[in-house]
Amino acid sequence: MSTGDDHDNDNAVVDPELQRLRDSIDNIDAALVHLLAERFKFTKAVGELKAARGLPPADPAREAQQIARLRAFAESAKLDPDFAEKFLSFIVREVIRHHEAAGST
Amino acid sequence: MSTGDDHDNDNAVVDPELQRLRDSIDNIDAALVHLLAERFKFTKAVGELKAARGLPPADPAREAQQIARLRAFAESAKLDPDFAEKFLSFIVREVIRHHEAAGST
Repeated sequence: MSTGDDHDNDNAVVDPELQRLRDSIDNIDAALVHLLAERFKFTKAVGELKAARGLPPADPAREAQQIARLRAFAESAKLDPDFAEKFLSFIVREVIRHHEAAGST
Repeated sequence: MSTGDDHDNDNAVVDPELQRLRDSIDNIDAALVHLLAERFKFTKAVGELKAARGLPPADPAREAQQIARLRAFAESAKLDPDFAEKFLSFIVREVIRHHEAAGST
């Protein structure tokens, strides 16, 4: 019975408290990735709608509203507001990259 | 009644379909920011636990597992797996930055 469910042969046994925290992080990451997938469906639809209506791709007033809103949420959730803003920029850069890739085909 | 609930005086009226999509994006973004706030609580606890146990801050095997798992989720959710991986790197960089900032005080 030396090759059962124990993990001694491939990995060090993880501290149970560390494992508990990692399990929670993994659950949150699964939720984040699925929400991002959903978000990209909406931004793709926005891109298509703007193209169909002849609207400009960028909207600085809208973006300023989004930043202010997310910074406020971050503050109330005790998350660094600068990080929330950086996070939004990261996502928006990816959206723009997708739109450009879609536009060039 | 020229200064009521209409937005004519500050913004162009937004196409209702565009507004509907933006409302969904805003809901998703609120969820994302709140999940990120929760995630940082867990990574902070991981950092403290590792420091208390004398464990090394980085764990390449764990990180490889996280990347593989998120790429698989992304694929099944029709999100670009490369983006999911970049997203995780972005978050992990921020976690490291926080740990370093915490360690230097």
